[in-house]
Amino acid sequence: MKCLAVRILIVIGIMITASRPRAELSDLMVDAKRLNKRIEKLAQFGINSQRGIDRVAFSRADILARKYIIDLMKQAGLQVNIDPAGNIIGLRKGSESKLPPIMVGSHLDTVPNGGKYDGALGVLAAVECAQIFYENHIRLRHPLEIVVFVDEEGGLIGSRAMTGRLTPQILMQPTLSGKTVQKGILAIKGDPEGIQKAARQKGEIRAFVELHVEQGRVLESKGVQIGIVEGIVGIRWWEIIVQGESNHAGTTPMHMRKDALLAAAKLIQAINKVVNSVSGKQVGTVGKIKVEPGAPNVIPGKVTMSLELRDLYAKKMDMLFKEIYKQAQDIAKKTQTRIDFVPSDVNAAPAVTDPILKKQVQAAVQLLGLTSHCMPSGAGHDTQEIARIAPTAMIFIPSKAGISHNPAEYSTPIDVANGTNVLLHTILGTDATPSD
Amino acid sequence: MKCLAVRILIVIGIMITASRPRAELSDLMVDAKRLNKRIEKLAQFGINSQRGIDRVAFSRADILARKYIIDLMKQAGLQVNIDPAGNIIGLRKGSESKLPPIMVGSHLDTVPNGGKYDGALGVLAAVECAQIFYENHIRLRHPLEIVVFVDEEGGLIGSRAMTGRLTPQILMQPTLSGKTVQKGILAIKGDPEGIQKAARQKGEIRAFVELHVEQGRVLESKGVQIGIVEGIVGIRWWEIIVQGESNHAGTTPMHMRKDALLAAAKLIQAINKVVNSVSGKQVGTVGKIKVEPGAPNVIPGKVTMSLELRDLYAKKMDMLFKEIYKQAQDIAKKTQTRIDFVPSDVNAAPAVTDPILKKQVQAAVQLLGLTSHCMPSGAGHDTQEIARIAPTAMIFIPSKAGISHNPAEYSTPIDVANGTNVLLHTILGTDATPSD
Repeated sequence: MKCLAVRILIVIGIMITASRPRAELSDLMVDAKRLNKRIEKLAQFGINSQRGIDRVAFSRADILARKYIIDLMKQAGLQVNIDPAGNIIGLRKGSESKLPPIMVGSHLDTVPNGGKYDGALGVLAAVECAQIFYENHIRLRHPLEIVVFVDEEGGLIGSRAMTGRLTPQILMQPTLSGKTVQKGILAIKGDPEGIQKAARQKGEIRAFVELHVEQGRVLESKGVQIGIVEGIVGIRWWEIIVQGESNHAGTTPMHMRKDALLAAAKLIQAINKVVNSVSGKQVGTVGKIKVEPGAPNVIPGKVTMSLELRDLYAKKMDMLFKEIYKQAQDIAKKTQTRIDFVPSDVNAAPAVTDPILKKQVQAAVQLLGLTSHCMPSGAGHDTQEIARIAPTAMIFIPSKAGISHNPAEYSTPIDVANGTNVLLHTILGTDATPSD
Repeated sequence: MKCLAVRILIVIGIMITASRPRAELSDLMVDAKRLNKRIEKLAQFGINSQRGIDRVAFSRADILARKYIIDLMKQAGLQVNIDPAGNIIGLRKGSESKLPPIMVGSHLDTVPNGGKYDGALGVLAAVECAQIFYENHIRLRHPLEIVVFVDEEGGLIGSRAMTGRLTPQILMQPTLSGKTVQKGILAIKGDPEGIQKAARQKGEIRAFVELHVEQGRVLESKGVQIGIVEGIVGIRWWEIIVQGESNHAGTTPMHMRKDALLAAAKLIQAINKVVNSVSGKQVGTVGKIKVEPGAPNVIPGKVTMSLELRDLYAKKMDMLFKEIYKQAQDIAKKTQTRIDFVPSDVNAAPAVTDPILKKQVQAAVQLLGLTSHCMPSGAGHDTQEIARIAPTAMIFIPSKAGISHNPAEYSTPIDVANGTNVLLHTILGTDATPSD
């Protein structure tokens, strides 16, 4: 049934798309060689001695990479604008001037010593699609906007500006470039004072589609070519503080101890058990721990550690946290310690992708004869922010060994081409489909 | 039976001790007011704004404190010498010139931001005993040596020199003063080149007795006045390395993780259970932990943590470690991690105190009508080093709340006087007892 529905959609789409015969559009493919070459070229901006990419937002490497992309956009016939947040927007006009734009893109900034694909793939793939339309004289019904979001890694800065949520407080925050967000935006010719003008309203964007590397090992381990993202998980962070009593490890008998690290160890195990106690794709992680005073011959008096929960469903996160908290209080009682949870300001709501757009992605996958798997995105992306104001879809390609944010980040040229072809046909399918 | 034997020893002792009538000797008491004043005075050398003592070995404060003690020794009629290691030795000659000396003392150096009693009490109490003998014209049979050992906190430097174990390697090690051990010894007028001459042979010391604060809460919690030390526990350190796999905490499903911190948490619990699984006074501590990369959103790839075991019996430590190692391998298997134990060079053998000297201490406690408890010393002391070449005894007084190595380290003036009186009568009893 699904397949049939999807095929009908595609057929309608291709009939509506102007000026090109039906067979030709469904055969349309990106230039894989050109695209993969550009990935290598873009990686030169910020490459370091470990072959990692140092291209944090607002750095010199970031500014040079932006210039490179603007040039590519112009070669692809796009009209380039910088919005007040510094987001680069390359516009290809549509045949129906009143329709809202289809937007595709990602980000150019990397974490320190990051990889070549995270963000970069989504930008270059979007530009490639635009160039294919340009070279093949394909005029879409909708305007097409290719977007480069500013400072994704630093907290979805550009996409937050687009949803109207970039507060003056965030503008004053420091970034890894050494500049504040505000100074960074000025350096890339944005207009922090007019930041509110970067905001789009609900309904102003027909669809936002982002192609990205998975950054995990699910696709690789399943031997699947394309990930169709069901949603981007919510993320919640807490700081856990375990207060025990520091004491001389030689002179304090075992039964007189209030060992904060022993309590923390029990809690780390309890967290793992609680997260695994229900079915689903939720994850829970303790990634950071600090012990005070931290000497081999001193009983730990205080432990500070992180807790992160991620899931597509806020209610499930609530339930998991409630159970973790309950077990923590039991552990505190038994170990004569005190355990407190301080919620962090990292608190992103889950963002479910649009079911109709998801079907467009599925249709593109089927058209191309690729294999796919529906999955949540465990990592945060600009898509989750844009989902507040527009229907969104995300396409994943496999990451070798699941490695990301690392010089070893890698996706094969074939997977790069496959993902970009799925993006191309998702754009075509969406453009062809009447909105509700 | 014990009590009777001890009383007979004391009676013999008092009969042999020359030139003072029996009743007068058993009534002999230290000058508690003078002693407690001197503890306050000595604390001025190195006192900091938190009322802690910064008097690491070879620092200016240490050198000034040594000068102060040398002056007190001279006032007590002692002949003062500095041995090649820089140990201060104040000699009071005995009536029988061929007898080996009874030695009493401790150290003057502190840890950074340490307390007023650790070490200082043992030195000032020893000087007080010598002064009491001097003022009361009491001539012991044995020579009496009051010793200030160099750099106890930095690794029993002075006492190691006295047992002939101060290697050229140790001489080249840095100390907290900024100087190497060698340069430090030169700064206090020792002779590092002649360090071997500081060594005493087995049989050259009749007895070594050290008074010290407990640095634990056992005496306080039992409401007992004097701790009679059965021995100084052996200490063994290991570095535990847990190797898992670092990965993105959002994109790696729970069942695909090799979380090094989760494995470490299981091991910390297992260590605690193993140490508590057998009766006795053994302790086991994980006091230090480091997680890499150490971010809330990254699965820990590597954990490095410390393991310390202490006990009076080497065999028990062997047995405990064997079981911990076994359980670690099970945990590694279950968590898909690798767990290695790297033995550290901190590896002190247990030192059992001399049973006959222990009875002398018990006799002194009974003579003074004090309460006592036999216990191991969980902390290391110069006594454990001297135990290699001489019969040793240690006397503890309660530490308030068990706090030590801290500005809050405190023992009451009455406990200080009690401990010093026990030391005084232990010296008298030992002096009066024929050696084997």
